[in-house]
Amino acid sequence: MTGRLYVVGTGPGSPEQTTPEALAAIAASHVFFGYGPYLDRLVLRDDQRRVASDNREELARAKDALMTAASGEQVCVVSGGDPGVFAMAAAICEAIEAGPPAWRALEVTMVPGVTAMLAVSARAGAPLGHDFCAISLSDNLKPWTVIEERLRAVAGAGLVIALYNPISKARPWQLGTAFAILREVLPWTTPVIFGRAAGRPDENIRVVSLADADPATADMATCVIIGSPETRVIERPGLAPLVYSPRSIGAIK
Amino acid sequence: MTGRLYVVGTGPGSPEQTTPEALAAIAASHVFFGYGPYLDRLVLRDDQRRVASDNREELARAKDALMTAASGEQVCVVSGGDPGVFAMAAAICEAIEAGPPAWRALEVTMVPGVTAMLAVSARAGAPLGHDFCAISLSDNLKPWTVIEERLRAVAGAGLVIALYNPISKARPWQLGTAFAILREVLPWTTPVIFGRAAGRPDENIRVVSLADADPATADMATCVIIGSPETRVIERPGLAPLVYSPRSIGAIK
Repeated sequence: MTGRLYVVGTGPGSPEQTTPEALAAIAASHVFFGYGPYLDRLVLRDDQRRVASDNREELARAKDALMTAASGEQVCVVSGGDPGVFAMAAAICEAIEAGPPAWRALEVTMVPGVTAMLAVSARAGAPLGHDFCAISLSDNLKPWTVIEERLRAVAGAGLVIALYNPISKARPWQLGTAFAILREVLPWTTPVIFGRAAGRPDENIRVVSLADADPATADMATCVIIGSPETRVIERPGLAPLVYSPRSIGAIK
Repeated sequence: MTGRLYVVGTGPGSPEQTTPEALAAIAASHVFFGYGPYLDRLVLRDDQRRVASDNREELARAKDALMTAASGEQVCVVSGGDPGVFAMAAAICEAIEAGPPAWRALEVTMVPGVTAMLAVSARAGAPLGHDFCAISLSDNLKPWTVIEERLRAVAGAGLVIALYNPISKARPWQLGTAFAILREVLPWTTPVIFGRAAGRPDENIRVVSLADADPATADMATCVIIGSPETRVIERPGLAPLVYSPRSIGAIK
């Protein structure tokens, strides 16, 4: 049997946000690779086998998955959210490029999903309603100086910023430093959203000003969205506020 | 009966990429507002009514939908892709902020979806595998000078760029000018992906270099992704190339 590889995004966490395409890819696969907590969300059959690994083992996991697919298995690599956003799709491509020629002949299918910033944005209103960017705050794979330069560039250009991987035990100071940099560029009244576990039972969405943004509010499961100077907050009696970035800016042509 | 408003993203176009949450919101609604081609994708019951409008009527559509929900109806505003990305969620928020107090008391639920750049990225490999941004190339709602400044800033900072609304009959020259600006900042070998109708039967994904990027390749249904200087192309015998942005850049700390 010819092996094949699916790289699947299961969405932010609620089964209600997993696409039929992702479920079909999971049903068609026999060996599953992924970070344990993501694999735990799957409902598997007796003939389906799981190989869990730590979330800092992405390249090793990618190689294992490709080797298994090349041996003729139907393999599924599982990411939360979307596999193409700070997740396994890039690791698979890296492994293919550096690997044996047989890996380039494998049929590889990436299955997109709802990435965290979209789920958080939906819960908050429409903070990503105009130009925006997604930046990983992890300096495990790029120098911190590059992250600083990027934060200044995108905030100065007026883009809304979604921060992935904002904080972890091994990276405790980066988010606070990021807020300090952004306070040099943006109005301190700029809305900041801490979106944790959007769409899941333990969901927690908090909206504060950049002045009051406290890194301790975030953990590994949080996506932090920082508004642009245009981003607005609508207070609502008895309901959560709506945060949104208007579709238009400045003087129109 | 108390009215309520769903703002739903149906994903890039294939029913296989629409979430169960979006389908549940559609099933619970009775009046549907949206751009005609998006409403055409829905399978509605006899008791469900549709109100189609042109795709440049977003604010008027938002007001109509809010008025209808405030009258006690279960209303659904439909976007393709994700409603929070250059779509109806921001228009609804704008209308609420400018509208009567009763609109602030309405229960409003945004339902996220797979936005076009994620679907295109999945088909191409993992071009959004590291820091990236989404920029609308439409100068209907912001000055062209702002768009130029943003393109220079994000390309200079090394972000991958997804362009929404790249071209239309009324905006024929903007995409060509954007490519010209990017050729001043990025290597001419940078991969450019023209992703049309990703996930649909008429899907068309083309990968060229920035030097060869021709605006005529794009239409209104195209999402254009321009790589960063790190973005790579893996050629594969008998298969489409994989385009990806590595997870790491530069010298690691």
